Amino acid sequence: MDQTALFTITYGVYLLGTKSEEKENACVINTLNQLTQDPMRVSITVLKSNLTHDMIHTSNQFSVSVVSQYASLDLITRFGFQSGRNVDKFADFSYTTDTLGNPVITQDCVATLSCKVTQAIDLETHTLFIADVVEATNLAAEPPMTYAYYRELKMGKVTQQRPQAEAPTPTAEAQTTYQCSICHYVYDGDVPFESLPDDYVCPLCNQPKSVFKKL
Amino acid sequence: MDQTALFTITYGVYLLGTKSEEKENACVINTLNQLTQDPMRVSITVLKSNLTHDMIHTSNQFSVSVVSQYASLDLITRFGFQSGRNVDKFADFSYTTDTLGNPVITQDCVATLSCKVTQAIDLETHTLFIADVVEATNLAAEPPMTYAYYRELKMGKVTQQRPQAEAPTPTAEAQTTYQCSICHYVYDGDVPFESLPDDYVCPLCNQPKSVFKKL
Repeated sequence: MDQTALFTITYGVYLLGTKSEEKENACVINTLNQLTQDPMRVSITVLKSNLTHDMIHTSNQFSVSVVSQYASLDLITRFGFQSGRNVDKFADFSYTTDTLGNPVITQDCVATLSCKVTQAIDLETHTLFIADVVEATNLAAEPPMTYAYYRELKMGKVTQQRPQAEAPTPTAEAQTTYQCSICHYVYDGDVPFESLPDDYVCPLCNQPKSVFKKL
Repeated sequence: MDQTALFTITYGVYLLGTKSEEKENACVINTLNQLTQDPMRVSITVLKSNLTHDMIHTSNQFSVSVVSQYASLDLITRFGFQSGRNVDKFADFSYTTDTLGNPVITQDCVATLSCKVTQAIDLETHTLFIADVVEATNLAAEPPMTYAYYRELKMGKVTQQRPQAEAPTPTAEAQTTYQCSICHYVYDGDVPFESLPDDYVCPLCNQPKSVFKKL
């Protein structure tokens, strides 16, 4: 068994925040996944020794922000390498609050979700939380940071270069607005979806054009 | 609720294979995550309408291969955009078999895992399978394909360029061999781990050097 084979799995970098009994805390995680589209549901995996883990077990809610590729390492160090048991990670740091009351980090983040936990699955060292998304907001049209990129950044192998352009080009995803309601395939061809022939079928599940929904 | 905010979540591209009642099948998924280190456990999320989904429910085992950034789009089309109900995806295609008997696609893949399902969580349209990793193998020292890269490739925004070098440089991950047994932080500093001072502590959880294990 070559454990390094598991290092090839792709992850992002996320800031996870919650509020419980008047205390706010946040930490860094690398596992956030959309599970289903309807209901809009995601999962996160959190190490049990994290204070944020215990707080989510009580609050049953969290915010999770997608870190930008152009984020400063300081942001990740602040929330990832200290414990909320010893320091107030939010001291001297500006943040907002979502509709559920969770702290939301918007600085150097590209999107943020607010979630209500529906299920907690015990995995011995970690807990897998499954949650409904109740709010979803885009913050910046920048690429999200991958965990592989973060590691290269930390080792000085890449340098961050936020483009100087005033308005970054919206991503292809932002322009794509039709999705198959059966298999969740997102249409992203060059031809506008509306102009596709009537006999167009989903390339993934072969369902007719009529089952596509505008996002 | 801006559903496009969820498009910023980072995923990889994986080929999922299984064998059930003498039939072999495989499909493309974008959700594979390591959940815990001890036991070595992963999760996958599979759309219920996929034949591979039904077969894993019966076989309780699967192989999952991490697709290389340099993989051909044909590979993904073959396994991702057809149904094993209508075609034999493996016809005229060379593949191997793991110790559990699952088909394993090695072509254009960087690593592969063999897994036994321990839990299946019903998510209405999808099932989340939790599984123990029983075999893990590196196949090629190439970057894994991210789902964002796959989308750009499909749209012709990037071109694939497999380096011509004989032996690609091993990744930083492959050289890094010490990990904190408490929080799973992987040491990847420039100084060899053995040469770190005795009072070195894990930057994440502050545990002493002695808790680090060689991978």
